[in-house]
Formats: sequence, structure tokens, C-alpha cells
Amino acid sequence: MDKIIRVDMEKKEIKIESPKKEYERLGGRGLGSEILLKEVPPECHPLGKRNKLIIAPGLLGGTAVPNSGRLSICAKSPLTGGIKEANVGGVSGYKLGRLSVKAIIIEGSSNELYILKIDKDGAELIPADDLRGVENYETAKRLRERFGDVGILCIGPAGEMRMSSATIASTDMEGYPSRHCARGGLGAVMGSKGIKAIVIDDSGGKLREPKRKEEFQEVVKEFTKRILERKATGLLSKYGTVGGLTFVNKIGALPTRNYSSGSFEGAEKIGGKVVSEINQKRGGSFGKTCMPGCIVKCSNVMHDREGKFLTAGFEYESSAMLGANLGIDDLDMVMLLERRCDDIGIDTMETGATIGILHEAGLFSFGDGKRALELINEIGQGTVLGRILGNGVAVTAKVFGISRVPVVKGQAIPAHDPRKEKGTGIGYTISPQGADHTGIVIFQEDEPEKLAQMAKEKQILVCTYDSVGLCQWSEPDFDIMTRLLNSFYGWDLKEDDLKEIGRSIIRKEMEFNLAAGLPKVDHLPEFMEEERAEPHKGVFDIPKEIREKAADV
Amino acid sequence: MDKIIRVDMEKKEIKIESPKKEYERLGGRGLGSEILLKEVPPECHPLGKRNKLIIAPGLLGGTAVPNSGRLSICAKSPLTGGIKEANVGGVSGYKLGRLSVKAIIIEGSSNELYILKIDKDGAELIPADDLRGVENYETAKRLRERFGDVGILCIGPAGEMRMSSATIASTDMEGYPSRHCARGGLGAVMGSKGIKAIVIDDSGGKLREPKRKEEFQEVVKEFTKRILERKATGLLSKYGTVGGLTFVNKIGALPTRNYSSGSFEGAEKIGGKVVSEINQKRGGSFGKTCMPGCIVKCSNVMHDREGKFLTAGFEYESSAMLGANLGIDDLDMVMLLERRCDDIGIDTMETGATIGILHEAGLFSFGDGKRALELINEIGQGTVLGRILGNGVAVTAKVFGISRVPVVKGQAIPAHDPRKEKGTGIGYTISPQGADHTGIVIFQEDEPEKLAQMAKEKQILVCTYDSVGLCQWSEPDFDIMTRLLNSFYGWDLKEDDLKEIGRSIIRKEMEFNLAAGLPKVDHLPEFMEEERAEPHKGVFDIPKEIREKAADV
Repeated sequence: MDKIIRVDMEKKEIKIESPKKEYERLGGRGLGSEILLKEVPPECHPLGKRNKLIIAPGLLGGTAVPNSGRLSICAKSPLTGGIKEANVGGVSGYKLGRLSVKAIIIEGSSNELYILKIDKDGAELIPADDLRGVENYETAKRLRERFGDVGILCIGPAGEMRMSSATIASTDMEGYPSRHCARGGLGAVMGSKGIKAIVIDDSGGKLREPKRKEEFQEVVKEFTKRILERKATGLLSKYGTVGGLTFVNKIGALPTRNYSSGSFEGAEKIGGKVVSEINQKRGGSFGKTCMPGCIVKCSNVMHDREGKFLTAGFEYESSAMLGANLGIDDLDMVMLLERRCDDIGIDTMETGATIGILHEAGLFSFGDGKRALELINEIGQGTVLGRILGNGVAVTAKVFGISRVPVVKGQAIPAHDPRKEKGTGIGYTISPQGADHTGIVIFQEDEPEKLAQMAKEKQILVCTYDSVGLCQWSEPDFDIMTRLLNSFYGWDLKEDDLKEIGRSIIRKEMEFNLAAGLPKVDHLPEFMEEERAEPHKGVFDIPKEIREKAADV
Repeated sequence: MDKIIRVDMEKKEIKIESPKKEYERLGGRGLGSEILLKEVPPECHPLGKRNKLIIAPGLLGGTAVPNSGRLSICAKSPLTGGIKEANVGGVSGYKLGRLSVKAIIIEGSSNELYILKIDKDGAELIPADDLRGVENYETAKRLRERFGDVGILCIGPAGEMRMSSATIASTDMEGYPSRHCARGGLGAVMGSKGIKAIVIDDSGGKLREPKRKEEFQEVVKEFTKRILERKATGLLSKYGTVGGLTFVNKIGALPTRNYSSGSFEGAEKIGGKVVSEINQKRGGSFGKTCMPGCIVKCSNVMHDREGKFLTAGFEYESSAMLGANLGIDDLDMVMLLERRCDDIGIDTMETGATIGILHEAGLFSFGDGKRALELINEIGQGTVLGRILGNGVAVTAKVFGISRVPVVKGQAIPAHDPRKEKGTGIGYTISPQGADHTGIVIFQEDEPEKLAQMAKEKQILVCTYDSVGLCQWSEPDFDIMTRLLNSFYGWDLKEDDLKEIGRSIIRKEMEFNLAAGLPKVDHLPEFMEEERAEPHKGVFDIPKEIREKAADV
């Protein structure tokens, strides 16, 4: 990958640069964090012109490695005030790799809207005022009509309105904008730069070639076999990530009714088995891939009662946060809420958590799907109330004087209640990203030190996935990732070298956060230390000293 | 002062405690900060039950020292997320001193409303649901009808709604709730504790007696003489603090039209001379004292066009932020806006800054006083828009996607533009309180190091005033404060000992902030480093290293 595309939205100028030598071993999240730390003043306003939006495929993007097409988008987050990497599937990571684009860096700010079009010949900015206010599915449709079978990264009205829960949507194999860089409000950053969509046309691009071909093919074969033989792959392909919902409910870690319980009596109705059955009946599909080269196939295309397309990529976190956490067990309603979030371009986790606390303000009753739909539509319309909600839980709580606030670093706690999943809870407090849904430690363990060690190792592992570009559901370990990289790039890394790369990325992110004024180790909301969650009656009680040790990566 | 009144709002229990020996040399801000650091977990939610509201007169409260009745109120701030001390005049500091109350500590939280009544026999909680939603002037009137000539600390609707710009009003010599603990949202903390008002009846209390009487009388005499002989005293008594407005305008540091300029063409019309003249014509008065024993007399009682009472304590910051910063030069309108803020119980500085940025959201036009009044009334009514605005500039900016945000630590920058008053700007970034209107360094100086040294010394001086209980307008130096304290308490402090007490208080506040997750040295909004303010075309350009040195108190 020999190109960095630098887009200056002040001057509307594009430059193609050669990546610096020191970026050689960095991709995805690792590269994004490095560039942010080097080029962005940590104290800048996230929506101002000093912030930069960095889009980078992983080190193995655009190669023949299965599940290697994940894409990282990085910026200073308007939600957390710290560094943010949001990682997404869809086709764009793969296509950027095929075009040999190591990163896109978008600088400055603009009030006019543009499409950034990237192809084998370079990049251009195309005025896009006709797309102002257009929702994601319609935007993707229009852009595919206009540009053909391209990859699209786009924002909905929420991103244009610079809301802190705004996402960047990424189109999947069907061209639906169903995958989202959901967390941290990166859609607002893209909106502040005046970029409505990035269109990636990889015609004329090519699969990237490995340096040590035979060795590479061997390792790819081994990795492929390993993925296909895992029991989890079969389950994911059959039920999707939403298949995990009944399990998390069983252990009592499913946020229910504004995190007042870890167990939802309606869990079965919005869980993987029912979702899969209903979908089959209606002619939808499971076992879909969201990106080229995926062999896990956890995605889906969901139909409504009339058998018509309703949404794609209906995931665990969405079903949990828009369903259980709002006390809604009507699957059709939960899917509709998810679709509306995708269209408006807002994080389903942040949105579910936000509507949940409105119960306390008297503006929402648990189980009232129609009201939830109204509220989500208000976000899309940018009404005054909608603008509050679109800025997430922390702002909404402030506005309504609520002190029971389910966030870490201002970001909503996802669908793993840390009172049961204490290892996950440690991760929430030490991750430079705030409460994050990827560094999950399901394992139950009584010794806090052991949990802390697991949480730390999970952080390093996930950070490495995000930098190599591998989907977490392919579950690579450091050994296979090292061999994939060595054979592809002709390197001779040891497993520990790769771990150290992962560690050093997290340390850089912490450095950025400290300079931005955020603490190294954060805390969970106090209600999670005090209110016992049903059914296990747990509280989060991991002492700060132990979490501090875990943060020393 | 031998009593600490501890009020537990969870159990509705009151205990009278003897102050610990180590609190002997601490009063006001110093005592509040110490208790906060000792008793409040820095990571707690400001509106939750773990936070505490600490009310403490200064070390010389309730004595014969002139201008010694300032009162400190401290808590973790819902606005800044850090430690907060707001300091206020009015009669309550003096009365608490006469009752020998060293501090009131209010703990826990409550949804029901109470009056906390304090008198020579102790303290009691009186249900006050009849005062729910009642504005400050009416609350004070009713409480004085009921309890007689008492001191009152109370919150308006904003505090009840737990808004982050909510104040705690303090009644003056006339019984008007005209003085405000304005900054940092302490009214919201009081609201979260379910305290609508604190009523202080000092009948049966007595002036506190000095240890070394003759020496004390001598020093008091000298201090009195010094105050009366200063030119500033005469000016303050004639024009009030608003007398400074035309001067700040002249040097170009008067925030005008959302901090877009440092100079307002309508400054004369809302400045001290005009205010004083108009007031005289209408039968209002200048040269009022807000607290017993004041000999500076900078307060006023303002009448409207019909000669009827409009507001009291019309100050510089209010005229500047509700006038110049909103482009309003209609003095009657500015006074009305100020009165409405006092009644609703919101910080005039935060409110002026907040309405100012609404210009960018298309919700306010500069100069439109009627619209400003509507918006302030919406805050009082708690409409959805009102709730946003009542939470201050930072939240309002987030909701409307605005990146030009005039705050430090989430608190509005007061009426001293740091692009001209660079020393003041350094103070904004190093004060544990965020952008603060008391640590002002008007002095113009080209050497950043010298400015930084002045800013540091001003922080220590002001912190000492706030702890001793002396009004800054009496301008005591360390020498006279040391002698006042020594003769009153029978101590033998050196001037440097007192300075060290001041320094150690700031260090403790910084310690609290760090543990709460805030940075030691903060930054000004980036637009103040980039946009040149008229007429001097200055930007704020003091490097962080220099500010860091200044923060090392």
C-alpha cells in the first residue's frame, strides 16, 4: 500500500503522498492513532478544523487472507473528547487495499457538502449539495446508480448535524449501508469536514501480492481451516451475533430497562434463534458476508412481515440495546428501530442507552416501541429534543438533570453489564476508547487480578486485530497473525514483536488522551457500584489499583 | 467558630460536630476544599448522593473586620466536573460567623424539598414542597415574612431542575436575593440534595471576639483607613463594579457579540456612568452595602423607567455578558435580563455566553433583547430548549454542533477577553475552577513569563481572600491579612505562612481535579488562538510550558 491521500477541506485540495518509512508496520487503528498523535493537537475541538479524520484499511487489507477487510476510521472524538478508532466491515477496506491506499487523511472543515471519489487514478471532490439531509439507504442507492459497484462510506442527517452519536455507514456486499463505524461520533467529524460520502471504485485495482508466496498460501490455508472448523463459525453463520443474546441474558449481563437488570424476560423473542426462524419464513437470509473474503458469514438480510426488505446487519448490540434495554420484545419493532438508526446514521448502542434514561425524565416508558420510534425520528429531523438525544446519553442526562448515567468517557456502556462481566468492566475503564463493545471478557473469575490480566490481554489482542484488519469473529491468535504478516510482507517478526506493536498503539492512544486532558484510568458510573443487578445481585467492585495495573500495557 | 453542622439528606438527620483540630487555620474556600478532598470521592457524579455541598464563612466571618462576611460554597461541580468554590456576599456569611458555625456539610440526596433552618439552638429540616418552582425574589419574600430578618441562601427553578448553570442566591441587607454563588452549577447540587433554602437566624448570636483585642483593633483601624483612602473605593461606591465596563471596553477586552470583538460601540450606554445617572434620576441607589461591615459599598438598587424596583446588585459581569456579548445596548433590557436570571437562579455570565453562541445556531440575533428575554424565560420554564440553555455553553454547543465554544473546563469565559488580558487568560487555564472571573490580571505586559508569574500570584491571593472571607474589593494584601488573623486568633503566622496556606489550598484543589480526571493545566478554546479580536487584533499565544510553570503553585 503505497499511497496516502491527503484531502484539505479548507482549500479543497488533494495530495497523494508516499507513506513515511516509519509507518511501514502500521495499518488500520495503529496507523490512524500514530497519525493523530503526530498531526492533531490533542486539545483541539473535535468538530474544528484542527481535527483530522483518518481512514485506513488494516495491514492485510486487499489481500487473499480471509476476513481481512476491516476498516479503521480514527479522529478525536466529539463524544469522548479523546482518541477514537471505530472499526467497520463492508467492502471499503478491501477496495482501498486493492487500490493500494494505506490511508485517507481528511483535514480542515467545510460547510458545503462533497463526495470524495477515489479510484485507481487518484481522488477528487465532487459537490454534493443535492445529498444534503438524505438518509443513508437512499444516499447509497443514488451513489451506486451514479457510480456503479463502488464501496461507499457515508453519513446520514445526524452526521451533517454534527451529533456526537453520528456514525459513518459502510456499504456491504449488497450495497446496503448496513455496517457502521458506530462509536464516538465519527460521523459528526466527517460532517464537520463537509464530506457526505466517500466513494471507492476499485476497478483496475488488484489483489495485493505477498512477498513469500508459498509460505503465505500455506498460512492462509491453515487459518481458513481453523476458522471453518471452529464451532463458533457455524453458530455465527446460522444465528449471527444476535445468537449470543440469550446466552448473555442467561448469565445476567444483558442491559435491561435502562440497566436496571441483567436479565430480560423477553430475551428469547429478540434472540438469535427466533430472529433466524422468522427471517427464514419471510425469505430473508442469514449466513451473509459483509465483506469480500469473509468465511464466517455472520451477517443477515432481514425482511418484514410482508416479506419485504427491512434491514441488513441486524446485530447483537442493536437487538440488546434497542430491545432489552428499552423493555421492547417486539422483534419487528426492534428491527425497525435499528433500520431507522442506520438510515439517520446514529449508533444503536448510544441511542438505546439514551432513550433508556429518558424513562427517568418521564419522556419514555419501557416497552413503548412507538414512542422509541418517534424519538429516533426526532433525531433524524433535528428537532430540539432530537438534537439532544442525538448527542448521546451523557448530554441527555445533563440536560434533564439525571445522575444515573451509563457511560464511560461519555460513551454509552454497551450490552455487556460490567456488574456480571467484570472483566469487560475493567476493559471499559482502561480502554482509551471509553466503554467499548469489542474488548469483551465474558469469562467469569473471582480473582480481580486475573480478570484484570485477561482484560489487559484482550485490549492488546483487539487492538492488534484492528490494526491488521482482521475481523474479531475469525479469532486469530498472535501466532497466526504474525505468520500471516511475515509471509505477506517478507518480515521476520516474532509473536512478541507483534504483541509489542499492539501494546505500543494503546500506549500512544493513552498519550493522546492524557494530552487531551482525559485520565489514563477511568471509572464506571457509581450506580454500577451500588445498585445490585438482577438476577445475580452483583455490583462492580474491582478496585482502582487493580485497574491501574491493567492499564499499564 | 466551634460548630460543623452535618446534614444527611438520605436519613434527614442533622448532627452538630466539633471541627477537627487540623481545620483550625482553614475557613471558607480552604475549609471547603479540604473537606471535599477528604470526604468526597473525586469520581462521583456531581448530582449524586456521594457529592457534598459545603458552606463555610471565611476565617474572619462574623468579626468586626470590615468586608469580612464573604461566604464560600463548595462541591464537585456539575458544570466543570471538578472542584468548585463559589464565593458570595450578602448577610449569611456574617450571620453564620455570629452563630459560630464553621461549616455546613450537606450530604446524600433527596427528591423532596426542604428548608434548612439554622439558629443559635441548632438546625432543623422543614418540608418545603410549597416552595417548589417558586422563583428567588418570591422565595426570599415568603421566607422573610415567615422567619423575620434572617439570612437566606436559596435556589430558583433552575437549581430544582439541576441545571449546570444554576446558582445559589444569597440575600443582601435589604433581603433581596441579589448576590449569587453563580458559577459551576452549585445550585444544581443544592437542588439534588433537596434543599430549597437555608434560613439563618442569628438572633442570640454574637460578634466574635478577638484573642489580642488591642492589637486587633489597631489593625482593623489601619485596614479601614486604607480602604477608605483608596481611590477605587470612591469609584466603586459611586459607580459599582459596572463602572469598570467602559475601561475594559477601552482596552479591548470586553466580550462583544459572542466574543467576536473586544470592543462594543454601545459600551457607554450600559457602563457605570450612565447606569449611575439613570439610577439617580429614577430614585434607585448606589453606594449600598451587600453585607454587614462593608465599607466599600459597591452595590446598588436599580429602578425601572417607572421608578419601581427592578433589580439589586447589578454588576459588571452581568452588564457585559448580557449586554455587550449579546450586542444589546438597551440598559433597561439588560437589567431586566439580569433580574430574570437572578429570579430563575442562573449564572448571568454562563447565560450571556450561552445565548451568544445561539447566534451561530440561528436561534438568536445580536441586539434582540426581547428574544434573549424569551430564551431566559424558557430556562425558567424548563422547556426542552430551556433545559439545554440552562446547562450552559458547552452543552448548548454540543447539542447544536457548534465548535467555537468560549469555555475553559466547560465553564463560560467571563467578561475579560484573554486575547487582550493575557494574564487573565493564563489564570483561566491554571485555575482549578476553570474560566473564573475573580483571578483577573488587567496589567498589560509583553513578557509571557512575567504575566504567568502575575497570574500565579493573583490565584494565590484570591484563594486567600476566599478563605479568610474578605471581599476582593477591600484589596487586602498578605501583610494586613496576616496581622488581622494573628491578632484575632492569637497566632504568630508570618506573611509567607499565609501565602503557603493559600498555595496549599490550590494544590489540594488540583489534587481533587486530577483524581476526578481533569488535567492540571487546561487550554483556551482554539478560536481564541486564531481569530484576532478587534480593535487590538490580539490572539492568545501564551505557550503551554509557561502556563504549566504558572500552575506550579
